[in-house]
Amino acid sequence: MSEGGVILVTGGAGYVGSHTIVELLNAGHSVVNIDNLVNASTESLRRVEEITGKKVVTYNIDLLNKAAIEDVFSKHKITSVMHFAGLKAVGESVELPLLYYRTNIGGTINLLEVMSAHGVSSLIFSSSATVYGTPERLPIDENHPVGSCTNAYGKTKYFIEEIIKDVCNANKNFNAVLLRYFNPIGAHKSGRIGEDPQGTPNNLMPFVSQVAVGRQTELSVYGNDYETEDGTGVRDYIHVVDLALGHVSALKKLSENCGCKVYNLGTGKGYSVLDMVKAFEKASGKSVAYKIVARRPGDIASCYADPRMAEKDLGWKATRGLEQMCEDAWRWQNDNPEGYRKSA
Amino acid sequence: MSEGGVILVTGGAGYVGSHTIVELLNAGHSVVNIDNLVNASTESLRRVEEITGKKVVTYNIDLLNKAAIEDVFSKHKITSVMHFAGLKAVGESVELPLLYYRTNIGGTINLLEVMSAHGVSSLIFSSSATVYGTPERLPIDENHPVGSCTNAYGKTKYFIEEIIKDVCNANKNFNAVLLRYFNPIGAHKSGRIGEDPQGTPNNLMPFVSQVAVGRQTELSVYGNDYETEDGTGVRDYIHVVDLALGHVSALKKLSENCGCKVYNLGTGKGYSVLDMVKAFEKASGKSVAYKIVARRPGDIASCYADPRMAEKDLGWKATRGLEQMCEDAWRWQNDNPEGYRKSA
Repeated sequence: MSEGGVILVTGGAGYVGSHTIVELLNAGHSVVNIDNLVNASTESLRRVEEITGKKVVTYNIDLLNKAAIEDVFSKHKITSVMHFAGLKAVGESVELPLLYYRTNIGGTINLLEVMSAHGVSSLIFSSSATVYGTPERLPIDENHPVGSCTNAYGKTKYFIEEIIKDVCNANKNFNAVLLRYFNPIGAHKSGRIGEDPQGTPNNLMPFVSQVAVGRQTELSVYGNDYETEDGTGVRDYIHVVDLALGHVSALKKLSENCGCKVYNLGTGKGYSVLDMVKAFEKASGKSVAYKIVARRPGDIASCYADPRMAEKDLGWKATRGLEQMCEDAWRWQNDNPEGYRKSA
Repeated sequence: MSEGGVILVTGGAGYVGSHTIVELLNAGHSVVNIDNLVNASTESLRRVEEITGKKVVTYNIDLLNKAAIEDVFSKHKITSVMHFAGLKAVGESVELPLLYYRTNIGGTINLLEVMSAHGVSSLIFSSSATVYGTPERLPIDENHPVGSCTNAYGKTKYFIEEIIKDVCNANKNFNAVLLRYFNPIGAHKSGRIGEDPQGTPNNLMPFVSQVAVGRQTELSVYGNDYETEDGTGVRDYIHVVDLALGHVSALKKLSENCGCKVYNLGTGKGYSVLDMVKAFEKASGKSVAYKIVARRPGDIASCYADPRMAEKDLGWKATRGLEQMCEDAWRWQNDNPEGYRKSA
């Protein structure tokens, strides 16, 4: 092949992956994507190409198919890997833990082994603030204890972090950045790509958007008796484009032979469920019906990041505020009421 | 097949597995074994049959070969599984973490999936006191914090415990007993089966035995400046036959629909490296040359169990003392100086 080095993205057709590919292409990188399209559609990638005017080579490959991954590494000169692929529904992971362990852990082991066999030693991994479990202190910095999460989804994130740390420890040439996402929301400003959950959304903001656009009738707010300002749960929402730019910054860190580094990607600000409903109503001009229901087991009162380490080390910080998050989320939802499925 | 229910043992040709099969057969159970023979030889199973006068059906199967596991479950009416199989060399796991994660975690996921597909919902898992990491208090009871171990071997034990807990949580009919072994030593009193490490032994007592029998010239004692009575590391050594009997007791617990239970298998007594050398010299009548060298990274001063939970819940406690452990270890070593390889 005559191409220069490319970045291999796994799960690039998904929500965070597709937005990250846009920013990678905008920053001049070449991207090859592999995705099994279990929770995503190639329409997102077609639109990524439309937004950027650049090409994304994509393979419909499952990470459990190691030979197929090998083949992609043989065809392309891969310099770094951004690993987004994985199952991510918390409730489903409690019901089907083995599916989550096989898919997320097994897929990652295959990927790491193929990287090793091909001498590719730069990795960015999509981790999650869920690895912190119930916060012992707020804001949560990267030294907060990890591993106490109780669902299989969160455990797969934690276990994969540990596996990657061990690989870095065994091979001093291997560099990895583990990015612990807080709560990504919003969408690309074009309104062409965004979050497209299948079935009933598990996360707050897609649900709020779907109420506003008429796909859902009413939001259930799980508890208003938490120790927060208005009693509803507080989270650190981050614009998905800020999150995507955090990955581009992390790439530079990898080139410094950084070993294994861990960064929070959050804003440092916490908003309650009701804050988010109000902000979304304002941005959309629609009212969002909601009812207060019982707490969900496993939910915590408040969770927000100390994001200073990423600013210090990566020169990155989130710059898009709540208003923009909601406006961009609404543009995507309003322009694509059925996500990628029905709209053009 | 006309056979009644059988217990599937994985890794039954190994040290703990082979001794457990003897006690299972003695207690009237039928056993089918699968083992990839990577760290074991079928000679151990031939001798198990010789000791017990009973037959052990064995398959040379790797747990990474899911179809082969399926085949065994189709051929036999399996009622419970005792899962011993796995790689276990701490140092190797630090150098080759992906090999350990793939083998131990991947193999266990395959096994659990096949169990689920065949409606087999009773499992005993070989865990280890290594999951406790550096002890925060002594003796270590089952509520001691877990997960802080730093090597991939220990992490695989911890991760598998968590995976099994999640499976029990998702399926209320699934019952599991996680047995956290302290330091198994000794051998069957016949001297026909025992620990047979390949290459230089990683553990203290096989090394001591090999010095006594002349296969090694000198024992290295890693540090004599620990905060212990004589400055050398203190561990809870348990006779492998006591350990094996703990598994037979755990089987009864499973039949009570116990959910997921965790028990220490230890004696509650700690002995130092020098205590062990002296006891072995006495039992063997041989002198064991040793030298004091630097501490090994990751080693801890003292570790011993609170074994009362297993006594209370399983009606099991270790009854074989240090003298018997050393006598039985020496009989095995002296009768089989090269392990299973050269002796008849």
